[in-house]
Amino acid sequence: METSSGAIKGDPLLIVGSMAFDDLELPTGQFNDVVGGSATYAAIAASIYTNSQIVAVVGDDFPKATLEDLEERGTDTAGIEHATGKTFRWKGRYSDTLAERWTLDTQLNVFADFRPKLQASHTKTPVVLLGNIHPALQLEVLQQMESPRVVAADTMNFWIEGERDALLKVLARVTTLIINDEELRQLADTHNVRNAARKVLAMGPKRLIVKRGEHGSLLFDDDRIFYTPAYPLENEVDPTGAGDSFAGALLGYIAKAQRDDYRTLQRAMTVASVVASFCVEGVGSEGLKKLDMKTLARRVEELRTLVRVE
Amino acid sequence: METSSGAIKGDPLLIVGSMAFDDLELPTGQFNDVVGGSATYAAIAASIYTNSQIVAVVGDDFPKATLEDLEERGTDTAGIEHATGKTFRWKGRYSDTLAERWTLDTQLNVFADFRPKLQASHTKTPVVLLGNIHPALQLEVLQQMESPRVVAADTMNFWIEGERDALLKVLARVTTLIINDEELRQLADTHNVRNAARKVLAMGPKRLIVKRGEHGSLLFDDDRIFYTPAYPLENEVDPTGAGDSFAGALLGYIAKAQRDDYRTLQRAMTVASVVASFCVEGVGSEGLKKLDMKTLARRVEELRTLVRVE
Repeated sequence: METSSGAIKGDPLLIVGSMAFDDLELPTGQFNDVVGGSATYAAIAASIYTNSQIVAVVGDDFPKATLEDLEERGTDTAGIEHATGKTFRWKGRYSDTLAERWTLDTQLNVFADFRPKLQASHTKTPVVLLGNIHPALQLEVLQQMESPRVVAADTMNFWIEGERDALLKVLARVTTLIINDEELRQLADTHNVRNAARKVLAMGPKRLIVKRGEHGSLLFDDDRIFYTPAYPLENEVDPTGAGDSFAGALLGYIAKAQRDDYRTLQRAMTVASVVASFCVEGVGSEGLKKLDMKTLARRVEELRTLVRVE
Repeated sequence: METSSGAIKGDPLLIVGSMAFDDLELPTGQFNDVVGGSATYAAIAASIYTNSQIVAVVGDDFPKATLEDLEERGTDTAGIEHATGKTFRWKGRYSDTLAERWTLDTQLNVFADFRPKLQASHTKTPVVLLGNIHPALQLEVLQQMESPRVVAADTMNFWIEGERDALLKVLARVTTLIINDEELRQLADTHNVRNAARKVLAMGPKRLIVKRGEHGSLLFDDDRIFYTPAYPLENEVDPTGAGDSFAGALLGYIAKAQRDDYRTLQRAMTVASVVASFCVEGVGSEGLKKLDMKTLARRVEELRTLVRVE
């Protein structure tokens, strides 16, 4: 990825999430010990637009080279806790068409006892992305922060089912909720996406972004809806981390812009869709790392042309 | 539906397809003897823009009122053959969320021996929509026509699997193929939609339109792609006929415009998406019949706003 060598203007982004090893069974082969995790993908994607600060935990088996690579991208890794033991590990299998995936194994390891502790210098960061961790931990992060301007959060079916009360407390403090459409339907207990969105916005978030994989993403904001398609790829390799890359690029763009009005969010969603497309083109974060700004700009223009009636 | 009382300028549209009774098991209840069929839905939708001519077969149980209603909408029903016996009948069940459907029963009845015979006055119609019937019959229709300018066709998995040779002969003469994404993948034997589209365009059609239900539709034309979302409904009742309404409105719009350049197709897809949304709002063609031009225009504008970056 080309990154500008000069200082990045705009706000930094605080990212809380997982750092992990993934074992991936893909149509193209078996790939073990692939460095992944929501915070890793989000930070690489965010680094296109701004500097980020990671709050996460890794075990003593986590590669130094990955941390050094993140630092070279302008990422502050001081908030990454180094615990004794093994790093979080996920094993998954994808269907031949990549349309389905199954979790084969999850080993929480050092992630099981993770309690995010913010560096003093991170408590004032104005934009924060709360990755998909226990909602009680998402709350602990917010309690350590001094009124961030933008609080984005992800969550998952496991917390929606089992930790609804804690999750509702998080939602009351979230400005931008980013979930997929199955999670939306589950959270709202409503199938129709428009009605479900209305119910979820009433739980607290000012904005809701619904990820639909290859079918793009939707932004709900009061009674307004904005839709951006996914970039239509010809060569899909590995969707792992695409959603986290989307969120990282989105928040990185917003942090850099120092604003999150509706128009800025529309632009952020468009670029985030394209950044996610790079992620899908390689195993793990390989595709993201090959991203160059010229191809990114070309794809953003293609995405706009895709929906433009001449 | 409000229809203009004056003569409609533009070309007429010839529609070949089925007229049927449907028994529908919907989340909202069981509805029997609902008048349906691809030609019926397409003709009602097309009547918003132009006069159409139906080529189909009905049994002696088919309601006169439906034919009269079509005639009032400017549809020429002279090409509808009245056979002795029962009309084609389909029985289907939808899932609670309407996302899935299962065929419970199909009774071809008079449709089993259907051989489309064109009225002399229909052989010069410049725009034709070949609904989803046996590709050999689609070919017979084309053989009776004098070089139509636009030949649109639909097909289904059954013909793709079992009548590939006949289907390929049809595709060689089709200008605009309108199928759903599963059919596209099956026809091209390729999962990736962009690669599949390239393969199908090489089979003959100048344009390919891929229907994706609630996820909108895609237009492929050489190396250009255009995407239009589905109109995000709040009240989905019955998806039966939505795809046929989409095709009918699309071709009606093109016939009226007397052109099918890329820009006209983009506009046609947008209005067709909206017309299909009305269809989903009622059982059978009830929703379509309640369509009024003011609401249609408002939804078209909403659909444009949905993807417009401010």
